[in-house]
Amino acid sequence: MPAPGPSERAPLAIICGSGPLPFAVADAALRQSREILLIALVGWADPQAVARYPHAWVRLGQFGRVWRLARAAGCRDILCIGGLVRPAIGALRLDWQTVRLLPRLYRLFRGGDDHLLSGLGQIFEEQGFRAIAAQDVAPDILLPAGLLTRRRPTAEEHSDIAYGFALLDAMGPFDVGQGVVVAGRRALAVEAAEGTDQMLERIVALRANGRVALPAGQGVLVKAPKPQQDRRYDMPSVGPRTVELARAAGLAGIALRAGGIVAVDPVAMTAAADAGGLFVVSVAAGRAAEA
Amino acid sequence: MPAPGPSERAPLAIICGSGPLPFAVADAALRQSREILLIALVGWADPQAVARYPHAWVRLGQFGRVWRLARAAGCRDILCIGGLVRPAIGALRLDWQTVRLLPRLYRLFRGGDDHLLSGLGQIFEEQGFRAIAAQDVAPDILLPAGLLTRRRPTAEEHSDIAYGFALLDAMGPFDVGQGVVVAGRRALAVEAAEGTDQMLERIVALRANGRVALPAGQGVLVKAPKPQQDRRYDMPSVGPRTVELARAAGLAGIALRAGGIVAVDPVAMTAAADAGGLFVVSVAAGRAAEA
Repeated sequence: MPAPGPSERAPLAIICGSGPLPFAVADAALRQSREILLIALVGWADPQAVARYPHAWVRLGQFGRVWRLARAAGCRDILCIGGLVRPAIGALRLDWQTVRLLPRLYRLFRGGDDHLLSGLGQIFEEQGFRAIAAQDVAPDILLPAGLLTRRRPTAEEHSDIAYGFALLDAMGPFDVGQGVVVAGRRALAVEAAEGTDQMLERIVALRANGRVALPAGQGVLVKAPKPQQDRRYDMPSVGPRTVELARAAGLAGIALRAGGIVAVDPVAMTAAADAGGLFVVSVAAGRAAEA
Repeated sequence: MPAPGPSERAPLAIICGSGPLPFAVADAALRQSREILLIALVGWADPQAVARYPHAWVRLGQFGRVWRLARAAGCRDILCIGGLVRPAIGALRLDWQTVRLLPRLYRLFRGGDDHLLSGLGQIFEEQGFRAIAAQDVAPDILLPAGLLTRRRPTAEEHSDIAYGFALLDAMGPFDVGQGVVVAGRRALAVEAAEGTDQMLERIVALRANGRVALPAGQGVLVKAPKPQQDRRYDMPSVGPRTVELARAAGLAGIALRAGGIVAVDPVAMTAAADAGGLFVVSVAAGRAAEA
């Protein structure tokens, strides 16, 4: 292994959106004795968690402030992670650097999420930073292929899993969705702007109002990154809460695209699935889930 | 025009699911001086509306009873129309004819909606009936191409409409969805088992919880029949309520695939859209919406 270059020895700037992922990555960097600076987005990052790390707060739209903070701390690498629900224009606080970028940001904003995120990464690189991915700092957060739980998918569930991945692949060029719920080779729900959690809550409602009339214990949540997704900037994630919601939705289990999904607290997630009798399986692209 | 054959002179059996469509078709048949018999599904068809027509009630799963009723009334043509949310096994009341068909019904049931509906049609044909489509009896219920409203889509809305039709085409082979909501070439919602109305209600919720942060008056509902859909048995529909929900969801308008969508009360629908400042446009396959 080569000695770390100057970029790896410099502190890592982590721009933090919402959810637990930024802190999982921060912990992984600290375990590797790397200094970090959390640059936390007001309104998205969790203030209690942020307070446990070296940090500064910025508002969305303060690009100039991000660059000043990162340079002052000696950072060379920047990592963006966490949820960033597409903001309302009213939530933006523009500094002058951002105003200069506005025509370009507007074009990014009109495209899908992938455009927005990879476009922001380009802007960082033009400022002399290196845009790096969470899996570069914390490779163990991506689930490898394999069965995580005691329960295995049945032959029918394997068929639903294959159907789900094929449907996600077909939608990929449209920059939409990272998840579907499939039962009996029928898509019960397709994820778009609502996100995986709210899609699973919808299955609960559809069972209650009779539009989904399957017995409990049928149906699979299938998740994959979008084919065009730039994994430096955005990765779908699962965790114990995903399992809880899948269980509440009466599903049989969860199938994930191996190497493309971040697991938040995989030990607790697996324990929750085993307790609920669900399977969780991570499937390599182009392969059926292991029987 | 040829004289009607014996099949057209015999009364028409209309198997009625939920919603207003069965009665729109019944009225169209009566306007053509054709006798009808509504065979109304307990739990789906609206009893007050059914009572205005010659009718009989059946429970789902009573195939033998449907055939006896239709034959006793001298019917040769059978038309199935209206919503039929996939039933729970517990709602089925099986007669002996149905029990004989169970292995086949089970295979149909495991496929998507299209399999279920076209499979049922085949079973009617084997019993000597002719399965006919609503548009054969009432061709005027399918919207032709054209702009219905005073307001026209803008260039950006045309772009979103094209994106929505392309996404629906890509999902078609998976027997999923008849609708999407698109804004800025991004899919905000994709319809699956919840249906169009509940998908539009979701946009209201996504605006309220901040996951969709667009200003009101942006976004287009795009609807098309599934490419593999057998239009004798199932057609997507729109009506005044669709416009009300689209307006509540803050959308700019509605785009429909010409010749593939049934309009329930198109006059009231257009009036509601004009009152709300929405556009409704029906677009021929392979063409951009008329400017």
